[in-house]
Amino acid sequence: MGAAMALNLIRAGHDVIVYNRTRAKAEPLAKAGARVADSPAGAARGCQVVITMLANDQALREIVLEDGQNAAIHGTERDAVHMSSSTISVALSKQLAAEHAARAQGYIATPVLGRPDSAAEKKLWIVTAGPQQNVERCRPLMEALGRGISIVGDQAWRANLVKLGMNFLLASVLEALGEAFALVHKSEVDEHQFLDIVNAIFGSPPYANYGRIIADKKFEPAGFRLKLGLKDVNLALEAAGDSAVPMPFASVIRDRYLAAIAHGRGDADWSAITEEAAKAAGL
Amino acid sequence: MGAAMALNLIRAGHDVIVYNRTRAKAEPLAKAGARVADSPAGAARGCQVVITMLANDQALREIVLEDGQNAAIHGTERDAVHMSSSTISVALSKQLAAEHAARAQGYIATPVLGRPDSAAEKKLWIVTAGPQQNVERCRPLMEALGRGISIVGDQAWRANLVKLGMNFLLASVLEALGEAFALVHKSEVDEHQFLDIVNAIFGSPPYANYGRIIADKKFEPAGFRLKLGLKDVNLALEAAGDSAVPMPFASVIRDRYLAAIAHGRGDADWSAITEEAAKAAGL
Amino acid sequence: MGAAMALNLIRAGHDVIVYNRTRAKAEPLAKAGARVADSPAGAARGCQVVITMLANDQALREIVLEDGQNAAIHGTERDAVHMSSSTISVALSKQLAAEHAARAQGYIATPVLGRPDSAAEKKLWIVTAGPQQNVERCRPLMEALGRGISIVGDQAWRANLVKLGMNFLLASVLEALGEAFALVHKSEVDEHQFLDIVNAIFGSPPYANYGRIIADKKFEPAGFRLKLGLKDVNLALEAAGDSAVPMPFASVIRDRYLAAIAHGRGDADWSAITEEAAKAAGL
Amino acid sequence: MGAAMALNLIRAGHDVIVYNRTRAKAEPLAKAGARVADSPAGAARGCQVVITMLANDQALREIVLEDGQNAAIHGTERDAVHMSSSTISVALSKQLAAEHAARAQGYIATPVLGRPDSAAEKKLWIVTAGPQQNVERCRPLMEALGRGISIVGDQAWRANLVKLGMNFLLASVLEALGEAFALVHKSEVDEHQFLDIVNAIFGSPPYANYGRIIADKKFEPAGFRLKLGLKDVNLALEAAGDSAVPMPFASVIRDRYLAAIAHGRGDADWSAITEEAAKAAGL
Repeated sequence: MGAAMALNLIRAGHDVIVYNRTRAKAEPLAKAGARVADSPAGAARGCQVVITMLANDQALREIVLEDGQNAAIHGTERDAVHMSSSTISVALSKQLAAEHAARAQGYIATPVLGRPDSAAEKKLWIVTAGPQQNVERCRPLMEALGRGISIVGDQAWRANLVKLGMNFLLASVLEALGEAFALVHKSEVDEHQFLDIVNAIFGSPPYANYGRIIADKKFEPAGFRLKLGLKDVNLALEAAGDSAVPMPFASVIRDRYLAAIAHGRGDADWSAITEEAAKAAGL
Repeated sequence: MGAAMALNLIRAGHDVIVYNRTRAKAEPLAKAGARVADSPAGAARGCQVVITMLANDQALREIVLEDGQNAAIHGTERDAVHMSSSTISVALSKQLAAEHAARAQGYIATPVLGRPDSAAEKKLWIVTAGPQQNVERCRPLMEALGRGISIVGDQAWRANLVKLGMNFLLASVLEALGEAFALVHKSEVDEHQFLDIVNAIFGSPPYANYGRIIADKKFEPAGFRLKLGLKDVNLALEAAGDSAVPMPFASVIRDRYLAAIAHGRGDADWSAITEEAAKAAGL
Repeated sequence: MGAAMALNLIRAGHDVIVYNRTRAKAEPLAKAGARVADSPAGAARGCQVVITMLANDQALREIVLEDGQNAAIHGTERDAVHMSSSTISVALSKQLAAEHAARAQGYIATPVLGRPDSAAEKKLWIVTAGPQQNVERCRPLMEALGRGISIVGDQAWRANLVKLGMNFLLASVLEALGEAFALVHKSEVDEHQFLDIVNAIFGSPPYANYGRIIADKKFEPAGFRLKLGLKDVNLALEAAGDSAVPMPFASVIRDRYLAAIAHGRGDADWSAITEEAAKAAGL
Repeated sequence: MGAAMALNLIRAGHDVIVYNRTRAKAEPLAKAGARVADSPAGAARGCQVVITMLANDQALREIVLEDGQNAAIHGTERDAVHMSSSTISVALSKQLAAEHAARAQGYIATPVLGRPDSAAEKKLWIVTAGPQQNVERCRPLMEALGRGISIVGDQAWRANLVKLGMNFLLASVLEALGEAFALVHKSEVDEHQFLDIVNAIFGSPPYANYGRIIADKKFEPAGFRLKLGLKDVNLALEAAGDSAVPMPFASVIRDRYLAAIAHGRGDADWSAITEEAAKAAGL
């Protein structure tokens, strides 16, 4: 995901310095014109904006805060802005806002909606929040990365919360399709035929795309890994718990993902959650 | 719903005889050119096709089977076809198939997807199943009623099952939106702003339409009454139970609808299910 | 179950006429002193009290109402009392009350709590409801059948509802134990050791007895068949639905039982529901 | 809880040094013969065994690990044993085991089952795990605190896991009773009458005690506060998540506790979870 985003920034004419823990992953970007840094701090140094895109809280915390003098926060300039694009917890987003503020650095959250192929095609949708002037400074970058931007307030963590809410909606589609497909399949209605009707009514790319993956049972290679899907629903439940919001659908989804993990499907596409509805129905 | 459908048939040039338990409801159709019958049997007599559209199993059973000599089945001609458009149980659909077969009458199921305003605009989507020649005989009528037809097999009840599966998917959208809206609302993210992002990602009329109703809290007048939503999820659970398909999302939805009924919301739009997620979150 | 009950009545000195659809099942009772009737009506004729114990609504309806002149209701004397001991729906219990009232026959519900071995040992607990004088007339019979009686009102169906509520509580114990056992088992805590702690805290025969069955995985032969467990939770959910009571635990239990049925476990003991929690955890 | 435990130790003839963040709470113990320390470290210094009993992970972490030189771990002698009696996460228990091992200090987990009044009456049940010689050294203390001891392995965290599993079973009883009471109440069956039947079948103190609290609606003062109940089910879900065990009952319970918190019931007894089932049923 990060690579596709960096490439779009290069294409848009920005000077890009990249860092990846696995240096080989940075090579294609070097060929495209990026400079490759030796450390997160090195990638941040001298830049106006530092963009991070990592798999989870722990990875982001290590790269930004904990990696000693290599940590990105130590290379980030005063008045530079950290655009945090990872899907992370509300709690970590609040912590990052405080850490950056203490160093007179800017911080906004810019989680993205879309899968890696959408990123490559510049079709991401970017949800952002943070102090308005910082959001505006980063706008040209966001425009280079996606097809649209939604600003949801001046506190960065709100964008992270919205991202968790959106991923919850998508995961709900997966579970709902899994149950519906199990229902019709057991009555010998063809799943592709059912999917045609779904598409006629919903007319929605996520339904069409995931519906096809599910009906075809093509869960590999993963567009978005199931264990990351579990991470996201856990983060949504954690945020919901902190503000006392019961989310029974999210709880069902979590239980399905745990079952899928227990059945060895953590690296399949997150839409493989639908196999659990099928299994429970004896399919 | 039935009135809008009858009007489209009249407009398409078909001879239409109508019957409604409340005769006044038939008057506008009379003005539009329909004949008004005094009984279900009277409406059926002499026709090639008998179309029924009622609120639930019990109402359909009364009109078609139980109303003595007035029952539609007694007026239906040999070789005429009963097009059953109501959302009913798989069990009743199987029973109707048997009853009609015993009388050398045809029977197909033709449940419709769409709300009354869609019916008026001829935008229904019709799911049908039954013996092929009967489906073909009725095709011109279905084309007069909607924007598309899906044929899901030669046993009528399969169309009813598919309809239940589709309504389950729609109800899942409602509950998922309810939980997501409660989550973001409690963190002071504006629900309309969140809905804009939902629309950017899903690009789907049901999300857009229901999302707006929910964000506006405009649950009256009902497009589709909540107690009918409960009926449909109960029918889905019953069909799922008969073929041993666990549907935890459907169970959550049922519990929400029961709570909404307990709170006096049975006649609100079925999207008022989202008030229950809000209430549970203390909103 | 019915046989054990009949034997206790014979031992208590009552004149007993028995009927079973499978006549061979009545033979041991004949040896013990019962007369064997050829039909339900024949078993009822001339008796002060008619006791029924059948597997479900359908079986009871056939025997009592639908079997033409053989139906029990046609043999039941005016002023005799029908003691309905089966676990049936609230709806059927209401219907039976009406049917008997129309014939000047008495009707009370007397569902029993306990497994067949408890019945044999006269350890059943009997929940009853119905007009007081009929309950009192039947009291000596109930005392011959069990260790205690609870009267829950003068409308028979209330006893059926209470029975469904009690079976729901027992099924909840099963599912809760299933989840707890899966949790500790996956952390290599011995299930029998855990059960010892459960017994120390709960000090409860159902926990001790079912806990041992589950820890030993001895689900056959069934004390109470899983498909009857599903029937009962369905009846509880139906009654709950009719009075708008959401029961999320009951919904989870239903889904587990459906999964167990889908996995071919319908004839195992109903405590085999716990295999589903284990399976979902990859055990 | 801690005070009742300390008193039992004093009565059993042990030399006891106590520390509480609110010094006044230690006064009654001083009168009973305990010495009062000024800091956790001061309470630990010179002792063979250090017992901690705190409300949650954070409180225990502060007292034992984070309070600078005042932290208990700095006062704990080499070869002394830390008996950790709080209900804490598996993760914190593993961390404490490592921290103490690094200082050549012993560590066992000794969570207790029972409410404060049980502690006062020496009726706690103690679940323990840890290296065998340390468990044996602490046995006389455990015998002074409760009516029984269960040893569940030589890794301390297993005792914490078992405690979470037991609290989950108890919370399941509460939710199940809540749903059953709502069901029978809405059909005008008296809840105390229903409880009598529950007691006849379960014969179990937790059912009898909580059943009475619930039927009487006496949720204050709290024997165990609802927000601690939420904490415990969250810990159970976290542990279950880490070992990929789906626990749908636990998820339902969590959602109910969140609703209760949202409705301002965090300081009521945890059995007030049953008010949520009642509310959802419109009671």
